[in-house]
Amino acid sequence: MNITILINHKKLDKQYINAISEYEKRLSRYCKIKYICTTNSDQINKYNTKDAYHILIDYSVNSMDSVELSKKINEIGLYHNSNIIFYINVNNIKYDEKLSVSQMDMSCDLLTTVMFEQIYRSYRILNNEPYHK
Amino acid sequence: MNITILINHKKLDKQYINAISEYEKRLSRYCKIKYICTTNSDQINKYNTKDAYHILIDYSVNSMDSVELSKKINEIGLYHNSNIIFYINVNNIKYDEKLSVSQMDMSCDLLTTVMFEQIYRSYRILNNEPYHK
Repeated sequence: MNITILINHKKLDKQYINAISEYEKRLSRYCKIKYICTTNSDQINKYNTKDAYHILIDYSVNSMDSVELSKKINEIGLYHNSNIIFYINVNNIKYDEKLSVSQMDMSCDLLTTVMFEQIYRSYRILNNEPYHK
Repeated sequence: MNITILINHKKLDKQYINAISEYEKRLSRYCKIKYICTTNSDQINKYNTKDAYHILIDYSVNSMDSVELSKKINEIGLYHNSNIIFYINVNNIKYDEKLSVSQMDMSCDLLTTVMFEQIYRSYRILNNEPYHK
């Protein structure tokens, strides 16, 4: 599975980059994952036309819990596409699905960190591996 | 306002401590805030009997958005208590209110970081100050 997290933002705060790097390292066993910060709408649109399953992160009320997200990631890989692109802080794109993490607003940095943690947690769940608190 | 975040956990991962420290620094203008990691139930119970407004963080479906949380913090200070204790990963305590951040499970480290960010965001909202994405 190839996972891209596309963030409409200049760059992430340095205090979050370490946390994200740790998840990138841990996730390398399970998938290829990367994040891209860009405020260039042409670049965002280019990603949006790729052959991938496009998931828009937003603040709608309907949310998933961690087990549901893990099932969703598994299901996308099995039946839809081996490429997933998650969009953070992006509007006016085409998407296959919306995903809400929280009703609370979060900075792009924090939301990206939460998504990395959730994706890591998803793979731990899918592989029946324990996950520390 | 004195805010304590009490976490039933040995210690936070180092990659999150920097992010939390940054919010502690920024919040010093608005309130006194600290976090305590402990797995000692006597210590947790001691906090739980303090004169404070006790808020249990859990994963129930009902959530608040950031504006609602800011109003809640303001209202507690005005009408209830100038001490708030938030509990993370704690069971079997008395509480005045439950607060859900997300339906997704999060590690204690990440949830603590989210709470610091939300409390900082709350004060920015209450003071009509801008908050970067």
